[in-house]
Amino acid sequence: MPGEFRIGVLASGRGSNLQSILDACDDGRIDGRVVVVVSDVAEAYALERARRRGIEAVYHDPGRFRTKLEPEREAALAELLLDREVQLVCMAGFMRVIHEPLLNAFPGRIMNIHPSLLPAFPGLHVQQQALDYGVKIAGCTVHFANGGVDAGPIICQGAVEVAEDDTAETLAARILEVEHQLYPRAIQLFIDGRLRVEGRRVRVQPE
Amino acid sequence: MPGEFRIGVLASGRGSNLQSILDACDDGRIDGRVVVVVSDVAEAYALERARRRGIEAVYHDPGRFRTKLEPEREAALAELLLDREVQLVCMAGFMRVIHEPLLNAFPGRIMNIHPSLLPAFPGLHVQQQALDYGVKIAGCTVHFANGGVDAGPIICQGAVEVAEDDTAETLAARILEVEHQLYPRAIQLFIDGRLRVEGRRVRVQPE
Repeated sequence: MPGEFRIGVLASGRGSNLQSILDACDDGRIDGRVVVVVSDVAEAYALERARRRGIEAVYHDPGRFRTKLEPEREAALAELLLDREVQLVCMAGFMRVIHEPLLNAFPGRIMNIHPSLLPAFPGLHVQQQALDYGVKIAGCTVHFANGGVDAGPIICQGAVEVAEDDTAETLAARILEVEHQLYPRAIQLFIDGRLRVEGRRVRVQPE
Repeated sequence: MPGEFRIGVLASGRGSNLQSILDACDDGRIDGRVVVVVSDVAEAYALERARRRGIEAVYHDPGRFRTKLEPEREAALAELLLDREVQLVCMAGFMRVIHEPLLNAFPGRIMNIHPSLLPAFPGLHVQQQALDYGVKIAGCTVHFANGGVDAGPIICQGAVEVAEDDTAETLAARILEVEHQLYPRAIQLFIDGRLRVEGRRVRVQPE
């Protein structure tokens, strides 16, 4: 029986992190429910995952920009999420940087997951960046969104060893396994009221 | 019985990484010997550690600069190390950036250890940087020196979880424990001829 806490998910792609959130809501690791999934990509498989579960799935036209939403479209997205009484917005492979309209509507209530150990390798093609740099430890980060590119206060991180024969694809797959554990944990910490942001630092309060 | 492989160590401080290298030479984790320890700081405890073991300990006047050696002094240092038939130069808390004279004298034969997961947090006051940024995973890196600040190809890395109550001091202490394991391992990989540098990537060959 999913909890009452209301989660909205933003996704641009296949929605594997969305799936991990849905699974965690089902098995109680997240004491909450996904009430709406929004995508800036009409054919995103994330929307299909939502529909199959009877969760509202919305394609939201992002407007004419490539890396952000048009301000009016972002305001409309904030409105949509507020209408659904969303308490936490989870970006899960949402490929646009968000700005004031969403940040002001959900202050301290928007999370993102990124497949690197930030502050190393923000942005795109992250695993290839990591391999090209030659790191031996990669990983992933859940953080609060702050309007920068993968730049907000860090909630939790997971490390992954780089293997000698890793390609961007094999490394991404192993990191994704860790992401799928990490994101539900971060969300539940939020629901439990255990995250206190002090400047850039997120303090995890004892249970 | 220490091996024949000849290691030179550069240190500016108390020499805890030097100690881990000496210990590893003693117990066979490193099949080699430290033949000379050089410091740019006359009173560095690293020199005392060397003397106590009967290892040549040299204070080397760095000249008038603060973050590098004067080119003539660096050339003299290269000469000194070549005289001792050093096969690998290990920077262990050596607080100066090295340049052409040493790099050209020991191409691909100079290592450094740095207490962060590079490329995150190069430079100084690294643990405070990491805490201020709010990372949840810190660590350390052994890499080849290339004339940049903590910038050369990475040989190995170790991850350390940041604790809620960590200070720069407690975090540094836990990272140092990992450093003391990591550096001897990197050195032995070098001695075994298992490190192949391809651009920025260091490939570790199978045994």
